[in-house]
Amino acid sequence: MAPNLKSFFQNVDDNAETFIERLRKAVAIPSISAEDERRADVVRMGMFLKGELDRLGASTEARPLGKQPGKEHLELPPAIIGRYPAKKDDSKRTILVYGHYDVQPANKSDGWETEPFKLSVDDKGRMYGRGSTDDKGPVLGWVNVIESHQKAEIDFPVNLLMCFEGMEEYGSEGLDDFIIAECKPGKYFADVDATCISDNYWLGTEKPCLTYGLRGCSYYSIQVSGPGQDLHSGVFGGTAQEPMTDLVRVMASLVDGDGNILIPGIMDDVAKVTPDEESRYKDIAFTMDNLYESLGSKTGIFPDKERTLMGRWRYPSLSLHGVEGAFSAPGAKTVIPAKVIGKFSIRTVPDMKPEKVDELVYAHVDKVFESLKSKNTMKCHLQHSGKWWVASPDHWNFTAAAKAVEDVWKVKPDLTREGGSIPVTLTFEQATGKNVLLLPMGSSTDAAHSVNEKLDRKNYIEGIKLLGAYLHYVAEEPMKE
Amino acid sequence: MAPNLKSFFQNVDDNAETFIERLRKAVAIPSISAEDERRADVVRMGMFLKGELDRLGASTEARPLGKQPGKEHLELPPAIIGRYPAKKDDSKRTILVYGHYDVQPANKSDGWETEPFKLSVDDKGRMYGRGSTDDKGPVLGWVNVIESHQKAEIDFPVNLLMCFEGMEEYGSEGLDDFIIAECKPGKYFADVDATCISDNYWLGTEKPCLTYGLRGCSYYSIQVSGPGQDLHSGVFGGTAQEPMTDLVRVMASLVDGDGNILIPGIMDDVAKVTPDEESRYKDIAFTMDNLYESLGSKTGIFPDKERTLMGRWRYPSLSLHGVEGAFSAPGAKTVIPAKVIGKFSIRTVPDMKPEKVDELVYAHVDKVFESLKSKNTMKCHLQHSGKWWVASPDHWNFTAAAKAVEDVWKVKPDLTREGGSIPVTLTFEQATGKNVLLLPMGSSTDAAHSVNEKLDRKNYIEGIKLLGAYLHYVAEEPMKE
Ligand SMILES: [Zn+2]
Ligand SMILES: [Zn+2]
Ligand SMILES: [Zn+2]
Ligand SMILES: [Zn+2]
Repeated sequence: MAPNLKSFFQNVDDNAETFIERLRKAVAIPSISAEDERRADVVRMGMFLKGELDRLGASTEARPLGKQPGKEHLELPPAIIGRYPAKKDDSKRTILVYGHYDVQPANKSDGWETEPFKLSVDDKGRMYGRGSTDDKGPVLGWVNVIESHQKAEIDFPVNLLMCFEGMEEYGSEGLDDFIIAECKPGKYFADVDATCISDNYWLGTEKPCLTYGLRGCSYYSIQVSGPGQDLHSGVFGGTAQEPMTDLVRVMASLVDGDGNILIPGIMDDVAKVTPDEESRYKDIAFTMDNLYESLGSKTGIFPDKERTLMGRWRYPSLSLHGVEGAFSAPGAKTVIPAKVIGKFSIRTVPDMKPEKVDELVYAHVDKVFESLKSKNTMKCHLQHSGKWWVASPDHWNFTAAAKAVEDVWKVKPDLTREGGSIPVTLTFEQATGKNVLLLPMGSSTDAAHSVNEKLDRKNYIEGIKLLGAYLHYVAEEPMKE
Repeated sequence: MAPNLKSFFQNVDDNAETFIERLRKAVAIPSISAEDERRADVVRMGMFLKGELDRLGASTEARPLGKQPGKEHLELPPAIIGRYPAKKDDSKRTILVYGHYDVQPANKSDGWETEPFKLSVDDKGRMYGRGSTDDKGPVLGWVNVIESHQKAEIDFPVNLLMCFEGMEEYGSEGLDDFIIAECKPGKYFADVDATCISDNYWLGTEKPCLTYGLRGCSYYSIQVSGPGQDLHSGVFGGTAQEPMTDLVRVMASLVDGDGNILIPGIMDDVAKVTPDEESRYKDIAFTMDNLYESLGSKTGIFPDKERTLMGRWRYPSLSLHGVEGAFSAPGAKTVIPAKVIGKFSIRTVPDMKPEKVDELVYAHVDKVFESLKSKNTMKCHLQHSGKWWVASPDHWNFTAAAKAVEDVWKVKPDLTREGGSIPVTLTFEQATGKNVLLLPMGSSTDAAHSVNEKLDRKNYIEGIKLLGAYLHYVAEEPMKE
């Protein structure tokens, strides 16, 4: 361990209460991006973050992102971007970090045991509050790293570029274009050597991880329509072809109960498991009981850990989400719905091509619907699509992070992928042309997006050390790709 | 035509404006049984009706039906029962008539072109207003018949018993037990010779009909559950067995696009079409264009009128109504629903036995679900059930009504059945042990339960004549069954 890291770690421990206080102030600002009437709070949170960085001597800017699409009366919250130290040192590497300062909605009445916008620390060190783990803890982590370097009088190891947005929980409106523009030569994010995103979670609760892959998502709707308006089944049942009858048949043709996708050709481009990849699974801290606990049931598809993890993050899956336009309330209603829209999505993986997936889906759905010989009308379309992402965990950005984990947590990190998507990851990779690392702070039980979201005090404080240590190791790691 | 009918008809014409005024007063009372805060208006409407009958010298009672099940703070509106003439004449037949004085909800903002609770007559004589055709027009029809007999000084041909309820649009809470009790010897509805219900509609707009059959309805739900809570498809897609996947497969096994029910054994008890029944179809005033117009599309199952009418009212049908618990809103949500409930119902016909239908449904659904070998849990249950009803159109109650139609409308009525159910019909048949006739006043375009409900002035005025003429003919028709 480098000697300057030791004094950094000590300083983080000495300032733990200050850092928790900073998180408390941030959690108290209800920066809910999905609620129009909270927009002023989102902006206030962005300004709080900018102010903290300014006081530490960072060079910062609040960059406007324009009006919110579809809500032209609403200004998007700014991207808070910054550079530390304020003046670039050309002898050092440049690391870009990303996080978001907006949060999911939360109301005490949803079932919270504490006030969601008041940080409440229990006797086990669990710090409850909306945004504690997603993503205010990690974002303030970077601020705290800067402060401890100053207080401990340690030379900052890299040129740190920061990009913090306020619309992540609402689709990162406006951010892609901004990142792409600012990564161009001569702009704010030019000259980035690597990117680090801290906005996901450990696979479990005991062992840190580095994340090197995300699945993509292609979301489709199948609309079947016939009658001009909803009908009464007493009057029309037995005389009209019913759209729901067709829709459930098409939906039943997409996937079987064991998760096998029944669309011909869909598996053709899925990358084969290499021996190298396969070897990574057996050491991962995950058990079938972990799955059953998080499922709340024993209704898993596979009996073993390896195939379950592969099912989660390296094979595609297809889920049927629901039906719009049909009767969906409790009780009984004898309606024949005139227009029903089935929703499903496919989680995509290397080396599937989203456009080819679309074509295979359309061809299959068309064929099945045609075979029904229905007089109703069917339309299938893509609602949205995001590509999968996978990085090499052998890249120096990852090996540096692994050393930082070993330093702080005294354990080799799990190398994980995730089943969901963080679309900005791919944007950073493509816009910078450099490696992106996902370096989570919180654990699997943090309940991001749910009631009683929390961040463990240990994950926060050791996480600050981890982010700082990462900057030291990534500053010196030999640059093999 | 009997001479006393001629003067009755003349009197109805002379008093047309008075009768329309009576309907105007009734429509102005928003007697919506489904809305708790309108309960006082429902009671007020019942009292208005009772008052009109009292002024004409009928003997009436407002009978309490107890508390509303599930809403114990709410008193059910009373059944308004009456007898005219007040004193029974043992030399005359006793005819029981039924109607309801409550209405469906209505708000101008639903799309009404006029105020729903203000009778608005246009230049074509269409009288718009909630309850005009369902069922205040027919109920006041009986009141008007009494008034015109008095004014024209015609001897009343029968002992008229009346049963008007205020909860029909909310499931006729409390009425079945009341009817069964009052049909016992010595009670109010003892000694009924036949029943007439005016609460349905012509098949089209040109030709009156007598209705002799209704389908029953058995409503089922299929619940499939697995995980302890809704899951995120990014995290669990590809590792968990999904309830929606199982549910659409079970739902797809129930019926095909041409309406064929795929549950083994379900058609076994369906009565065969007799030559006598078949002969009734060809003269019925109904065309495929009528179907397409009411469907708002050409997505009918059958190309011909006869098979379409049979599909509507003499064969069973199965409709899939929707799914509870899945994603049903517009937009995209990547949820794996933990518990989904599919809803479907079967319209039943002679000679299907509801209990046997239940057993066939359960056996089929169990078998299909078992074949999926799913780890999820499935439960299928009956939500509610009402039996089919069919009467003989050769009964004297019907032949009398047919003569009345010919007298008033100068045309032989269509003999129709209906695809929906009016459960009280079966209750009256079983409680009185006598024939029940459905004798509609309004036409197929009256939009009962919809916006812009109306009753044509001609249907109202000629309908009053029809109800009166029916009482004269039914008083004298030879009593062959
Ligand atoms: Zn986040
Ligand atoms: Zn989030
Ligand atoms: Zn009615
Ligand atoms: Zn009604």
